[in-house]
Amino acid sequence: MNAPLPRGFRAAGIRCGIKAKPDALDLGLLLSDEAAPAWALFTKNRLHGAHIEVCRDHLARGGGLVRAVLVNSGNANCATGPEGVADARRLCATLADRVGCPSEQVLMVSTGVIGARLDADRVEGALDALLAAASPDGGPAFARAIMTTDTVPKGRATDTPEGHRVTGFAKGSGMIHPDMATMLAFLLTDASVSEGGATLRRVADRSFHRTTVDGDTSPNDTLLMWAGGSETDGFGTDEPEATLTSVARALARAIARDGEGATRLVTIHVSGAEDEAEAAHIGRAIARSPLVKTAITGRDPNWGRILSAACSAGVPVDPETARLAIGEVLVYRDGRPVVENEPAAHEHLATRDEVHLSLTLTRGRGAAEVWTCDFTADYVEINAHYRS
Amino acid sequence: MNAPLPRGFRAAGIRCGIKAKPDALDLGLLLSDEAAPAWALFTKNRLHGAHIEVCRDHLARGGGLVRAVLVNSGNANCATGPEGVADARRLCATLADRVGCPSEQVLMVSTGVIGARLDADRVEGALDALLAAASPDGGPAFARAIMTTDTVPKGRATDTPEGHRVTGFAKGSGMIHPDMATMLAFLLTDASVSEGGATLRRVADRSFHRTTVDGDTSPNDTLLMWAGGSETDGFGTDEPEATLTSVARALARAIARDGEGATRLVTIHVSGAEDEAEAAHIGRAIARSPLVKTAITGRDPNWGRILSAACSAGVPVDPETARLAIGEVLVYRDGRPVVENEPAAHEHLATRDEVHLSLTLTRGRGAAEVWTCDFTADYVEINAHYRS
Repeated sequence: MNAPLPRGFRAAGIRCGIKAKPDALDLGLLLSDEAAPAWALFTKNRLHGAHIEVCRDHLARGGGLVRAVLVNSGNANCATGPEGVADARRLCATLADRVGCPSEQVLMVSTGVIGARLDADRVEGALDALLAAASPDGGPAFARAIMTTDTVPKGRATDTPEGHRVTGFAKGSGMIHPDMATMLAFLLTDASVSEGGATLRRVADRSFHRTTVDGDTSPNDTLLMWAGGSETDGFGTDEPEATLTSVARALARAIARDGEGATRLVTIHVSGAEDEAEAAHIGRAIARSPLVKTAITGRDPNWGRILSAACSAGVPVDPETARLAIGEVLVYRDGRPVVENEPAAHEHLATRDEVHLSLTLTRGRGAAEVWTCDFTADYVEINAHYRS
Repeated sequence: MNAPLPRGFRAAGIRCGIKAKPDALDLGLLLSDEAAPAWALFTKNRLHGAHIEVCRDHLARGGGLVRAVLVNSGNANCATGPEGVADARRLCATLADRVGCPSEQVLMVSTGVIGARLDADRVEGALDALLAAASPDGGPAFARAIMTTDTVPKGRATDTPEGHRVTGFAKGSGMIHPDMATMLAFLLTDASVSEGGATLRRVADRSFHRTTVDGDTSPNDTLLMWAGGSETDGFGTDEPEATLTSVARALARAIARDGEGATRLVTIHVSGAEDEAEAAHIGRAIARSPLVKTAITGRDPNWGRILSAACSAGVPVDPETARLAIGEVLVYRDGRPVVENEPAAHEHLATRDEVHLSLTLTRGRGAAEVWTCDFTADYVEINAHYRS
C-alpha cells in the first residue's frame, strides 16, 4: 500500500494500547496545514457511536472547516451513554488545544468493539506522540492504525488530469452493507470541490454503496471527504469528482476483496436495467444472497441462485429474456441454463481471484457494478468468536 | 413425527427414483375423498417453477376445488421452459384420469434442484403405486417424500375446540425467507373455512412469514390450505383459524429449528412496537443478520449486534429506551449494556436448544415473535457443495 498524501496534509498512525494485540497500531491522525472544508456521510443505523454526534455538531458549528481528524480503532465508543460523548468531546478539545485551533475544527472517529468505555486518558496521553509522528509520508501508518478485522491496510491515491491529488483510506471487512453504512473511509484532496455534500453523495452512491459483505449495517460508519484546495491556489477551478469516484471505487473493491473470510472478490455487472439505480439495486440483491456467496465458495457456477436472487429483488425482472454470464461464459439464456458451458464457468470461479457475474436484462439502458466476496466457513468462525 | 390426517383425506409417500440417494422417498400424494376447496400462496420470486403456473391455472379453472395434490422432491421443474410446464400438465392429467376427476382438480408441486428437466415418464410410471399406497395413515411417508435438505420430516396435527382436525406438512431448510417465500407447506382440515384466501394470508403472516433461515427466496415456494369440511357435515360452522395458525406456527418453528447447519432454534420476541407488523419487521431484521446468527453460534451474548440490527431496520427505534434480554436476563437498557449479566446470558445460549431474544421498545403495544436459527460453518459447507 502506497498512498502519498495531497499537498497540505499530514498523517500518522501509532500504537496507544487500545487493542490487546501487542504490536497493533490503534490511533491515527489526519492533519491539514490550514482549516479546510470537509463533508461527511454517517450510518443510518439508529444505534450510533458517540463520535457521530460530536462530528455532526462540530461540522455544523465550525462551518464545515476541519483542521484535524483523530481516529481510534479497537473501541467503537458506542452504547457508552453521555460519558462516551463527553470522552469524544474532551479528546477533540485537547487535540485542538495542541494544534492551536478551535475545538469544532477537530473531528474524532472510532471503530471497534461496541459497548465498552474508551480509555480516554490513554488516548490523551498519546496525543503528543501522535502529533510528533504526523508527516506527509504518514499515510501507510494511518491506514494500519484504523484497521479492525481487516487483513490488509487500504489506501489508494491518484491524480486528477489537472494535477491535483486524491488520496483515500478505508477500513472495513465485516458488518458491511450499502445505504451509507459501510465502514470508515477518508477521501483527501488538494483540489477544490464545489458543492461538496452533493458531490460526496454521488461519489458514495457509485462506490461504497455498491459494496456488501454481509448485509449488516454498522453503528459507526463514516465517510469523510476533505478538500484542502482552493480556487486561489493557482490551479484554477477543478472538479475532481471523477477522480474522487475512482479512488472511492478502488477502496470499495478493496473492502469487498478483504471481506471477512473471503477467498474471492466478486464483481457483479448488471446491465439492461431501467436505470443505474435499478441496476445497482438488483446487483446488491445478488451480492447479498448467502446462497450465491456460498456457491462461489464451492466454485459452483450456480446460475439458478444468481437468477433467483435477481428475480426476488422486487423489480419486474423477466427471467425469460434475462441472460447471465460467469466470466465470459454464458450460463443462462431464453429461460434455460446453458448446461454445456458450466465446466468453463466453473473454471473461471476456480482459477480467478476476482470473478465476474454479468446479468443482462431487457428493461432499458441502466447499468451498474456491485462488489462483494464469497461467504466461507471462516466468516462464521471469525464472527462466532469475535469477542471471545 | 405423527400427523394423523383429517377425515376424508389420504396421503402417500414412495420412492420413484428422482433423488439419487437409494432409499430416499421422492414422490408424495395428498388425496381427498371428494373435491374440496383449496387456497394457495406462491413465491413472489419472478423466477418460479413450472408448477406455480399450472397450480394457478387449475385453481382458477376448477373454481378452487381440488381432489389430489402430487408432490415431487429432488427436482424443482424450474427454468425448464415450456416443456417443464407441459410435463406438469401431463402428470396432472394422468393422475386425474386415474383418480376419476377433471384435470384441473389435480395440482402438482415440485421442489429440488433448479434447471434440470423432470423425468416425467418415471413419475408417471410410479402413479399407480402411489395411489395404491394412499391411506389415512400416509402422513408420515408423505412428510418424508417432500424433504430436500431437511434433516427431519415436518408434520403437525391438532384438533379444533369443536373437534375438527388440522394437519400440516412442510419442507424447508435453506433458501428460507418470509414474504411468501419460504418452503412447501400443506394445511389440511376437515373443518369448513370461510373466506379461505384471506384466512390463509393471515395464517401465513403469523407463521411462515415469521421464519427466516438465510434471507433467500425460493422460486418454488408454495403454501396450500385445503378444507374438506362443509357446513352440512353436522358440526355446524367452525372457524378454525386459530388452530390453523397454531399448526402453521409449529411448522414454521420446525423449519427454523431444522435450518441448514443450525444448532439452535432462535425465538425473537419484539414488543412495544407501534403495531404487530412493525414488531415482526424489526424481528425479521434481527433474524436476518448474519452477525447476530454467528454470535449465537459462538454462544456470545452480543447485545450490540442484536441492537444494531434492530436499529437499522428502517424504523425509528430509540436505542436509549430499548431493553434487550437474552433468555430471562437483561443485557441492555438505558443506552448501555448490563455487563454483569453477560455470563448468565452466555449460559442461556450455551445450554438451551431454543434460545430467546427479547427486545422491548416504547413505541406502542405491537408485539410479534419471529423464528430463525444460528448460522454455522455447516451452512456454508452444505451450500458450497450442494450441487457437487
